[in-house]
Order: sequence, then C-alpha cells, then structure tokens
Amino acid sequence: MSATLYEATTSAPVNIACIKYWGKRDTKLILPTNSSLSVTLDQDLLRSTTTSRADPFFMKDRLWLNGKEEEIKDGGRMDNCIKEMKRLRKALVEDKEPNAPKLSEMKLHIVSFNTVPTAAGLASSASGFAALTTSLASLFALPLNPSELSLIARRGSGSACRSLFGGYVAWEMGTKPDGTDSLAIEVAPQSHWPEMRAVVCVVSGEKKDVGSSVGMQLTVETSPLLQHRIKHVVPARMESISKAIKARDFDAFAKLTMADSNQFHAVALDTTPPIFYMNDVSRNLIALVEEYNRVCLQKTGHLGAAYTFDAGPNAVIYTLPDHIKAITELVLYFFPASAVGFYDVLNIFPEAGGKPTGKLVDGFNEEKVKKWDVGAVKGVIHCKVGDGPKILGKEDSLMTAEGTPKAL
Amino acid sequence: MSATLYEATTSAPVNIACIKYWGKRDTKLILPTNSSLSVTLDQDLLRSTTTSRADPFFMKDRLWLNGKEEEIKDGGRMDNCIKEMKRLRKALVEDKEPNAPKLSEMKLHIVSFNTVPTAAGLASSASGFAALTTSLASLFALPLNPSELSLIARRGSGSACRSLFGGYVAWEMGTKPDGTDSLAIEVAPQSHWPEMRAVVCVVSGEKKDVGSSVGMQLTVETSPLLQHRIKHVVPARMESISKAIKARDFDAFAKLTMADSNQFHAVALDTTPPIFYMNDVSRNLIALVEEYNRVCLQKTGHLGAAYTFDAGPNAVIYTLPDHIKAITELVLYFFPASAVGFYDVLNIFPEAGGKPTGKLVDGFNEEKVKKWDVGAVKGVIHCKVGDGPKILGKEDSLMTAEGTPKAL
Repeated sequence: MSATLYEATTSAPVNIACIKYWGKRDTKLILPTNSSLSVTLDQDLLRSTTTSRADPFFMKDRLWLNGKEEEIKDGGRMDNCIKEMKRLRKALVEDKEPNAPKLSEMKLHIVSFNTVPTAAGLASSASGFAALTTSLASLFALPLNPSELSLIARRGSGSACRSLFGGYVAWEMGTKPDGTDSLAIEVAPQSHWPEMRAVVCVVSGEKKDVGSSVGMQLTVETSPLLQHRIKHVVPARMESISKAIKARDFDAFAKLTMADSNQFHAVALDTTPPIFYMNDVSRNLIALVEEYNRVCLQKTGHLGAAYTFDAGPNAVIYTLPDHIKAITELVLYFFPASAVGFYDVLNIFPEAGGKPTGKLVDGFNEEKVKKWDVGAVKGVIHCKVGDGPKILGKEDSLMTAEGTPKAL
Repeated sequence: MSATLYEATTSAPVNIACIKYWGKRDTKLILPTNSSLSVTLDQDLLRSTTTSRADPFFMKDRLWLNGKEEEIKDGGRMDNCIKEMKRLRKALVEDKEPNAPKLSEMKLHIVSFNTVPTAAGLASSASGFAALTTSLASLFALPLNPSELSLIARRGSGSACRSLFGGYVAWEMGTKPDGTDSLAIEVAPQSHWPEMRAVVCVVSGEKKDVGSSVGMQLTVETSPLLQHRIKHVVPARMESISKAIKARDFDAFAKLTMADSNQFHAVALDTTPPIFYMNDVSRNLIALVEEYNRVCLQKTGHLGAAYTFDAGPNAVIYTLPDHIKAITELVLYFFPASAVGFYDVLNIFPEAGGKPTGKLVDGFNEEKVKKWDVGAVKGVIHCKVGDGPKILGKEDSLMTAEGTPKAL
C-alpha cells in the first residue's frame, strides 16, 4: 500500500423523468433523439454510493457492484468512462501541476452500492454512473462543473447525466455530432420548489421482455409517431415544463408530466413489434390519479397529483405536501401492500403509528378503480425532491484497507 | 291491415377494420378524420337481420331491437336514417312513378335482431345500421348502389358504411363538407381472396369506461400524435394495404393490420385522460401472435397471422387456412375457454370431435405467453371473409302479422 490514500466516496441520486428520453440518434455516444427533463429524488432512501481508490500497487482496474465483482469489459461503457476520467486527470491536472500525483497511471478499485428498498425496480444505472463519475472527479480533483461531468456520465447511461444535479434538471439533446453539447443543465435547484413529493409505487409484474436500450432503438426504427414526437411535441413541452417549474405551477407541471408519460408509452406501443411496459395494475394507478384529480379540480380548481411511468410497470406519483396523505391512503386502499412494503419516511401518518387510516377522500368514486389483492403493489416509498451528488467523508468509505468491499 | 304487405327482410355482416377509424371531423354528419379499411366477416355466426314494414294503419314509426322496443328519438341517428330513406323513396320512386304506393307517407315498424354468440362483445351497431339501411332500401325499391346506401348507413354509425359490401372494403373519408363523398367502396370482393380467416377471441374485461364516440373525440381534441397519424400515416397505409389485398399478399396485409391496430391504441393512450381498451389478456394475445409469427418467419419466411383490436379487449386474429388450426390450438392452450366458448364452425378439428388436440407448434417458445385460468378468453369464434348484405325471403321475416317481433 502507498503511504497516502487516494480515495473518494460520493453518493448520487435517482432521477425520474417528466419529459421522457426514448430514442438515441447515436448509440455509441448515447446522444438522444430529444431533450428530456427530470426531478431529482432525495438520497435518504434511494441512492448509489461509490468509493474509488487509486493505488500504485493495484494490478488492474476492478469494480464491485453491490458486493459482487463485475468484469470491466474492454471498450465497454464502464471502461470508456474510467479511461475518459483518467485522460482528463492527466490533461487538466497532472500536465499542469508537475507535483500532482500521477493517479492517471495507477489502477483503480471501485466499490459501488445501490441503496434501494428490495425490488424497488427503479433503474440504478442512472444513479450508479452519476456516483461513479463524481467519485472519480473527486478522487482526481478535476476542475469540472456538473454539466461538464454530465457529458461523461451520459456515455455510461444516458439518463445518468441528469443525476449530476439536484432539483429540476434538463438534458439538452444538443446538435453536435461529437455530443459535446448533449449535457445536463439545472432548470431550478431543489430550494426553488422544495415542496415537490414523489410517491413511488412498486408494481409486481413479469420480467419485461424488452430492455430499454433495445426497446428505444426499435421505436426509432419502426414508429412513425416517434418522429412527430421528436420534432414537434417534445421541444414545445420542454419549454412549457421549464416555465411551469420556474413558476412553481403544479397544474401545468402535472398535465405535461402525465401527457408525456402517456406519449412515451404510446410510441412504445406504436413500435413493431409493440412494446408494453405498463400492465393492468399500472392502468389502475392511472385511473386512481385521474379520479383523484377530478375530485381536486371540482373542489379547488387545481390538480393534486401526476403519475409517470418509466420502462416498467412502476408508477411514480408526483404530488405536493397537501395531497400526499390522501394519495397514499388511496394507493394503500386499492392496492394493499404488505406491512413491510410501506415506508412512512416522511412521517405523514404520525397519529396512526405510521399506518394509513383507511379514510378516503370525500367524493372519490370507488368504481373508477379496481380493488386489488395484497401484493399487486409491493411497496410504496415517499420521496422529496432532493440535492445532487454528495461528496462523503472517509467514514463513509465502502472499501477495506485492502481495497475490497466492506461487509455492509 | 292493408291488402298488400309492404315488407322487406335483409341481413348485414359485421366488419373488422384493418386500418382503423378513430376520430370525426364532423360529429353530426359522422365524417371521419381519416379513411379506413375493413374485412367483412361471413354472416353464418355474426350478423344483424332486419325486417321493415310500411303500413297505412301503423300509428307511428316503431323499432324493436333484439325483441325489446326502443324509443326512436326525434332527431336521433335512427330517426334521421328513417327520414332520409323516406325522402329518397319520395324523390327517387314516388315522384317519378305516379302509381307507386306512397310508402314514404306510411309509418314503419322495424324489427332487428343481432345474431352473435353470447357476450361476443363485438360492436353490433355497424351490422345493425347496415341491415336497417338495406332493408329500407329493399322495402322502398330504391335504385341505389351499395356506395350510395353507405352514405346513409354512415350517418347511423360511421363504420356501418363498410358493412354495405362483402370482401375488402374501404371507407373513403372524402373532402366535401356535406359528406357526400365520404362513402364505402369495394377494394376487392370476397371471391378475390376467399381464403382469409378470422379467429375472434372474446376477452373478459371490466366494462370499458370510455365509449368509442366519446373516446375518439377526446383523442381528436387532445392527442398531438393523432394529427400526424391522420395526415401522414393513414394515407400511405390505405394505399399499401389496398395493394396488398389486390396482390393477396398476406405478409404485407398482416404487417399493416398489426401496426395500425397498435397505432390506434397508441393515439388512444396519447389522449388526455388516456384511454385504454386492451388489457393484460389482450397484450398476451399479441405476444402469442408475435411469437407464432417469429416461428413462421423462421420456417417459411412468411407471417402466419395478424391481430387487431377495436375499442375493447377482444382480439380478432386474421389468418389463412394453413394456420388456423395452429393458431386455435395456441389460443386454447394459453387461454383455456370453457366448453361452450369454442365454436368449431369451420370444422378444423374433425378428427378430434371438434376439440383442439393440445398439440403446439414446434419451436414456439412457451415462455413468451402467460398461461391463463379458464375464462380469461371466454370464447373463440372462427369466421371467413364474407359477402355483403343479403335480401332474404318472406320466410325469414322477423315480424308477426300484427307487425311486432316474432318470438325466436
């Protein structure tokens, strides 16, 4: 072991898109066919944490994911990401400061853990590549801002670039063939609209038969409707939702979010062969939110919630503090989760000892939603809008002195 | 009762669209936002039969549907249809032949029955209005061809206009504001491609919450993707599928049919609030046909079947004689119907006494389709491509001497 420990540990958040990314114009550089926009979720329950260490005694670059060593394939996304970070270390630091340690010449050990409740089914590649990129940037002391780092995270996993910021984040598709303008920017920080809440509903379902990388390219190749979405619909929606976020206009935000989730699934269905990510449980979660919004509109003139679905059956319901209790009661009434499936981390049912009370909203038409058996929704997780990646202290290191994963 | 009996009985077929009608540009005249194309099914199992009688002693126009009297609402679709037929009787017959009986001045009794296996869930409004129109045209001895009659049937129920022909039928959307060029034409008669078969799979499901009339207008008002479909996709598909039918090219026919069914459901999903007609059973029927086609393509280079779904969860699977046995075996294997639910009218399982044998196609990957409990698919009905409306004899009259429905 060397005398000085060259190590950094960072955590990065999950992000959930409101305007969806679906389609690449360059699959190698991961350049999208349209811009997208997401909300970053807080890291209390959902995050990836990565410790990177450079050591002259390491024999090769190695990676452990959730405690298990993974091969770093030559020319693969992980390998490219590590190589690019080493290149930047050399160019931006070592070539300019002759005394800087030659970390770019050392081998790396990387240990990464995804912290998500069992089977949450949320994509961890976005937070994972964001954590890797920030951890290496911290280790290498790179003088790069989050947008610049997002260029590197993007090449690991497209939507990872949006996890480089907290709050409300746009991934601008860019126009350059080399992808240097396809990066994340902050539309508004978490502090601008901290009231945003997300209720993640984890839905049981068969394994999806089409992964999102393959699926989106099938859509690019075969869906006539995607072309219209790319050219005409998304540019207008990006502008509208940015305005809505800046104005903290939940009605506009909710309408755009729901419409864009539906349109993403519409172009998936317009693919040959068609791609389905939502199932009957997902459809009923939509019916629940639509009926709740009908009641809210009638009572207050405003919407109370907005669903969105990624490439799977899970719903994320964006809502505000005034509504999160009612939404949670409704979800747990129609989709009873087992006791372990509900995490009352925001303490919205303090008087009931963390249990929902079973009281529904007045005026909610129960016939609009089918009542399911226990387990159709496996878990309900509350989140707030959160911050971007965090640089953690030595006490948070995931690595043993020998450079292998700590037992957690 | 008058001495002469002025009465006519006709039957009309069901049609199942391959290029879908979804959206009206004029809701009163029922003018569509795009052309559509359908296959007419034979009338052995599925048809509407209508007897119309004019009698000077009748006190008012009356209508019985499936044995139950229905109100003819003033200014409603039924009323408009009857008035228009009377107007044509006067203009085209009575004004020209002074001796022709003044049927246009008499009141009408109309008795109509829909013959469909219990709960087939197939729309009967198309065959119903086609039967009504042809029965009145026959009663009134109108010198009109099916395209001309389709203009009147269209105003009863849009897709009814396509049931005026047998075989392969296009509903040309037309461009005139008065709708006089929005009519059905024959693309090819039944005899041109008599091999076409349809396997109707009747799927259990909750009652749909959005009827097609309301649903399609919601789509017109809110779906950005519909506009692209109307302007750019459908015109090209109408041309391609007409060519495919003329060339009896099942591969091209199947591809277009499946793609257009999926696109129709895609624009329904792109609606605010989103409309879902397919459920998890429907999705699995799609998976079944896609996997069957994969096997067929591998073995023969050709597709074997094409699914299509209207505004509900039922599948209609178009196929050819060589494949109907295999498709039926597959459907009944993954979706076991109760004994009464399967109608082997085409006698495709003669050696097994009308029962499927349970033997599956070699190479079919069973993991692609979930195996459901009995009843997920309630019934399976075989049809061929069929003829247009038929003028029936007196012995087929549905009316008693008194002008009320016969007990059937």
